[in-house]
Amino acid sequence: MSKLKLVELTDRGIRTRIKVGDITLGEDFVVIAGPCGVESEKQTLETAEAVKAGGGMMFRGGAFKPRTSPYDFQGLGLEGLRILEKAKLNTGLPIVTEVIDPRDVSWVCEFADILQIGARNMQNYSLLKEVGKAERPVLLKRGMYSTLKEWLNCAEYILAEGNLNVILCERGIRTFETYTRNTLDLSMIPAIKELTHLPIVIDPSHGTGKLSLIEKMSLAAVAAGADGLLLEVHVNPCEAKSDADQQLNPGQFAALMQKILKLNHFMQDKAFKSSITGGDIQ
Amino acid sequence: MSKLKLVELTDRGIRTRIKVGDITLGEDFVVIAGPCGVESEKQTLETAEAVKAGGGMMFRGGAFKPRTSPYDFQGLGLEGLRILEKAKLNTGLPIVTEVIDPRDVSWVCEFADILQIGARNMQNYSLLKEVGKAERPVLLKRGMYSTLKEWLNCAEYILAEGNLNVILCERGIRTFETYTRNTLDLSMIPAIKELTHLPIVIDPSHGTGKLSLIEKMSLAAVAAGADGLLLEVHVNPCEAKSDADQQLNPGQFAALMQKILKLNHFMQDKAFKSSITGGDIQ
Amino acid sequence: MSKLKLVELTDRGIRTRIKVGDITLGEDFVVIAGPCGVESEKQTLETAEAVKAGGGMMFRGGAFKPRTSPYDFQGLGLEGLRILEKAKLNTGLPIVTEVIDPRDVSWVCEFADILQIGARNMQNYSLLKEVGKAERPVLLKRGMYSTLKEWLNCAEYILAEGNLNVILCERGIRTFETYTRNTLDLSMIPAIKELTHLPIVIDPSHGTGKLSLIEKMSLAAVAAGADGLLLEVHVNPCEAKSDADQQLNPGQFAALMQKILKLNHFMQDKAFKSSITGGDIQ
Amino acid sequence: MSKLKLVELTDRGIRTRIKVGDITLGEDFVVIAGPCGVESEKQTLETAEAVKAGGGMMFRGGAFKPRTSPYDFQGLGLEGLRILEKAKLNTGLPIVTEVIDPRDVSWVCEFADILQIGARNMQNYSLLKEVGKAERPVLLKRGMYSTLKEWLNCAEYILAEGNLNVILCERGIRTFETYTRNTLDLSMIPAIKELTHLPIVIDPSHGTGKLSLIEKMSLAAVAAGADGLLLEVHVNPCEAKSDADQQLNPGQFAALMQKILKLNHFMQDKAFKSSITGGDIQ
Repeated sequence: MSKLKLVELTDRGIRTRIKVGDITLGEDFVVIAGPCGVESEKQTLETAEAVKAGGGMMFRGGAFKPRTSPYDFQGLGLEGLRILEKAKLNTGLPIVTEVIDPRDVSWVCEFADILQIGARNMQNYSLLKEVGKAERPVLLKRGMYSTLKEWLNCAEYILAEGNLNVILCERGIRTFETYTRNTLDLSMIPAIKELTHLPIVIDPSHGTGKLSLIEKMSLAAVAAGADGLLLEVHVNPCEAKSDADQQLNPGQFAALMQKILKLNHFMQDKAFKSSITGGDIQ
Repeated sequence: MSKLKLVELTDRGIRTRIKVGDITLGEDFVVIAGPCGVESEKQTLETAEAVKAGGGMMFRGGAFKPRTSPYDFQGLGLEGLRILEKAKLNTGLPIVTEVIDPRDVSWVCEFADILQIGARNMQNYSLLKEVGKAERPVLLKRGMYSTLKEWLNCAEYILAEGNLNVILCERGIRTFETYTRNTLDLSMIPAIKELTHLPIVIDPSHGTGKLSLIEKMSLAAVAAGADGLLLEVHVNPCEAKSDADQQLNPGQFAALMQKILKLNHFMQDKAFKSSITGGDIQ
Repeated sequence: MSKLKLVELTDRGIRTRIKVGDITLGEDFVVIAGPCGVESEKQTLETAEAVKAGGGMMFRGGAFKPRTSPYDFQGLGLEGLRILEKAKLNTGLPIVTEVIDPRDVSWVCEFADILQIGARNMQNYSLLKEVGKAERPVLLKRGMYSTLKEWLNCAEYILAEGNLNVILCERGIRTFETYTRNTLDLSMIPAIKELTHLPIVIDPSHGTGKLSLIEKMSLAAVAAGADGLLLEVHVNPCEAKSDADQQLNPGQFAALMQKILKLNHFMQDKAFKSSITGGDIQ
Repeated sequence: MSKLKLVELTDRGIRTRIKVGDITLGEDFVVIAGPCGVESEKQTLETAEAVKAGGGMMFRGGAFKPRTSPYDFQGLGLEGLRILEKAKLNTGLPIVTEVIDPRDVSWVCEFADILQIGARNMQNYSLLKEVGKAERPVLLKRGMYSTLKEWLNCAEYILAEGNLNVILCERGIRTFETYTRNTLDLSMIPAIKELTHLPIVIDPSHGTGKLSLIEKMSLAAVAAGADGLLLEVHVNPCEAKSDADQQLNPGQFAALMQKILKLNHFMQDKAFKSSITGGDIQ
C-alpha cells in the first residue's frame, strides 16, 4: 500500500486545531453528547437542554441511522435534521450528525457543524471523497474491523480531497469478548498522537455498550490524553429506539461531566506534560 | 434486531435460481473468473480469452477498485466498463463487476450482468438499497468482520427493495492468523444452505491470498456444496497492479477448472444427495 | 523467534508416516471417532462397537476433561482409561486419549496408542516436553487462538525432545462469528502440507459445534487433502455430559463414513495428484 | 457451563484484601516491576535496586520463561530463583515469579511471595489446581484468547481448592490490530469490579508491546480504578533476551512512578468515590 502523506505528524510537530463555535478541537477538551437517534422533537430538544445544562459542548444525534436490519428504525432523515436545527437554536450547541450517502453530503452540511462518518462506512470511499470536498470538519469513526493503518488511510482519503479538518474517533473494535459490546482500544490515543497531527476523541458508549462501564472508560480516556469524548445521552434511555443499554440519563451525564472536567483539569498539571520517553506530549 | 423475512428458507424448501446468459445460478455450478482489476484493454481481453478457453462461465474484473490507500490504482472507471463490454462481445461471457457508489448503479447496469458489492461495502446501506432497485442480480460479498446474521440482513436489505436475485459470496474473514490473507470460512456453505434459499459462491483467491492454497480450497468448496467459485485470473500475474500474489495464470486456471469440474460431477452422485441428519441436501 | 529446524518439509520431500496398529497415518486415510468424554463403561463400550461397525479406524474418548468450569464433569480419570482398555480389547481399535498433566504422561501411555494434547494445552510447554519423551505418537491440536507459526513451534517442542511422531489437528479457531462454535480453518491443510512433513487431521465436530455442518466440512476436508478426521460419536448424544450438540449418533456416523470413504477413494484419482502450481501434492 | 460460586461479588460487597509484606493488595495501589526474564545475577540485582529506588513495591522476574520457540532462552530455572532470593534480600521487595509446571509449585513457593500464572497457562487446569493448594497468593493473567467468563472460571478453579488470594491481571488480548502487540482491554477493570471481589492489576508492557504507549496506558489504568500495575523494567533494555521493545529503563520507570502516584493520589478525592450509576465504587 502507498505511504501516507498528509495525516502524518511531521518533525515540526504541529497539530491540527479545528475551531467549531467557541470550541477549538485539539486544544480544548470537548464533550459531544446526545441521543443515539433523533426520535422525536420532544425527545431531542429535551435531551439537548440536558446536555447543555450538564456542561456538554456539542450536541450529537443521528437523523440517518445505519441499522443491521432493514426493518429497524432508520432515522427521521430531513425531519430529523430540522429538529437538530431547532436544538442548536435553543441551546447554541454545535451539531454533530452522521451522513451515510454521498448524495446527501452537500445538503446535510446546511444542518451539521461536524459531519460524522460511522464505523460501518469507514471504508466507503465514495462517501469519504465527498466529505473530503465539504466545508465541514469530519469526525471519522474507526471501523469495528479496522487496523490503525486502514483507519489512517481513510483519513488520508479525506485530506487528499482538500478537507484538512478530520477528527478521529475510537469507538471499540470487534473481538471475541462478549461481555462488552466492543473492545474499547484506548491504546489508540497515544498511537494516534505519535503518528498523526489529528485530534482523537473516544466513544465509550459504543466502546463498551454497558452503562456501568462508561464512567471508568471516560476517565481512562481523559488520563490517556484524548482530545474529547462522544457520549450517548437520552432524556429517557428506557424508551430509546436504539442503544437503550448504553445511554446516560441527564443526571448521570451531569455527574460524569463533573468528574471528567475535574480530571482533565488535573491532567493539565505540568507534571504530566513531558513524556518519560522524551519529548513533549500534547 | 428485527427478524429476517425474505431471505429465509421456508418449509417448502424452494431455492432461488438465477438465470444469467446460459447459466442458471443455484442449479449449474458456476465459475466466475477474471483479473482483480481492469488495467488495460490488452490485459483484460487476453485474460477474458483465457478464461473462456479454460472453461470459465462468467468474466469478472473491477473497473472501480476500493483501495486501502487513496494513492493506489483506483481502477479505470467508465473506460474499464467499456473494456469489459468488449470482453463480453469477444467471448460471450457475462460480466460481473463491482459497484461502489449508489450514484453509479443505474449506468453500471448497462455494462454488468451481475453487480458485485465488495466486502468493504457490505453494510453500505445506501448502496444496498440502490442495487435493490436495479434489474440485475447482485453478488453480495461477506464483510471481512461480519457475522452470518449481519450478512443475511444485508441481503435482506436488497430483497426488501424488490430485487430477489442475490448471490452470497464468502471471501474470507479477518482473524489473527497472518499466514493467510484472510480465513476462508467454508462452514458458511452448509450454514447458508440451512438458513436461506440463496445461492452461495466461494472466493478462494481473496479467501487465502496465497496462490499455493487456492487449488485445495476450491476443491473443498465444491465438496462442501458451494454453487460456484470466484477466481482471480490474470494473463500475467507478476504485472498485476493489485493482488499479484493470488491471481492464477491461464495455464493454472485451465488445470484447476478440469479438477473442479471433475469433482463437481462426482459430487452429483446420488450417494451424496441425502443428508446424514435427514432430509435432502441441495 | 528462532527458526524451526525439525518440523519443516525439506527439499527431499519426505513425509512422516506413523504406524499405529494396522493403520499408517500419513498414508492411509484415518477416521478417529468416539465420544467427547468417557462417561460410563456401558456408554463407552457401546460407542466403541458402533465406531467399529461404522468403519472407524481408531477410538477416541476423554478420561481427563479440561472443562471451563471447575464444577462441570471432569472425566473419570484412571477408571476412564481402564474402560478405554476394555473398548480396545473388544474392538481391536487403537485408543486416542487426552493427557493434561505432565505427571500423568508415563502411565497414560500404558493405555493410549496416541496421546492427545488439547487446544487449551497447546502452549503448555512442560506437557509438550513430557510427551516429547514418550514412546507414543502425539496428536497436537491447534490452540483456538494460535497462529500457524505458534502451532508449528509447539510441534517443534515435541520433536526436539526426540519424539518424531506428531500428528497435527485443526479444530477450529475462535473468531467473532457466533453461529458456529469455532471457525474451522481448512486452509491449514495445504498450508501444513507445504511447510511441514507432518500429517494433519481435521476435527469438524469442535470445528463447527453444530451437527448439521459436520457432514459437509468432513467432505471438504477430504477434498482439501487431509490425512484424516476426528469425529465425535456417542451412542446417545442427547444424554452426553459434554458437547451434546455436536456428537453424531451411530447411524449418522456410519452414513458419513460411507461418503467419506467414497470421496477419499475418488480423490486418489491421478487427475488430482499433481499440483496446478507445479510439483506433486501428497 | 456451571455457575461461579466463589469469585462473585456478593450483596455485602466485601472485597478481597491480600497482605504481602507491607502492602495490602486491593487496598494500597501496587506497582510490581522488574525484568521480563532473570538473565543474570548482575542484571537482576541492578534492576531490583532500580525498582526499589524508583518506588516500585514488588519485584517481578521470570526464572521459567514460556517461549514460542523451543530454541529461545527458556529462563535460568532454580538458579534464577536463587537470584531472585538475593534481590529480595538486598531490597526487601516481595518477589512475584511465574510457575509453569504443577511439579514445581511446592518448591517455587519457597522463593516466591506471589505465584504468577502466565497467559498461555490460564487454562492449564492441573497447574491451577496445584496453585489452588499453595500457601501463596496467585496472580492470574488473562489468556490472550480468553473471555471474561473463562478467566473468572479459572480463578474459580483456584479458589475452589482453598486458595482465596487471587489477583487478576489483564495483559492484553489478541485481535487483528498489529500496531500494538496485543489490545489492552481496560474495560475489564470496571467489569471485574462489578462482578467479583478480587483485585485487578494491569500489565501495559505486554498489553501494548510498545515502549511509547506504556505511560499513557498506565495512567489510564489508574484512572479506571485498577488496583495496581505490572511493569517491565530492565537496567539495559537493549540487551534484554526477551521483550526488548517494551521494557522501561530505570530513569523511565522512576519518572513514570511519579506520575502514577500523583494521579492515584488525586483519584482518591471523594469526588470520584460514588458511581454515577449509583452505589459506591471501590
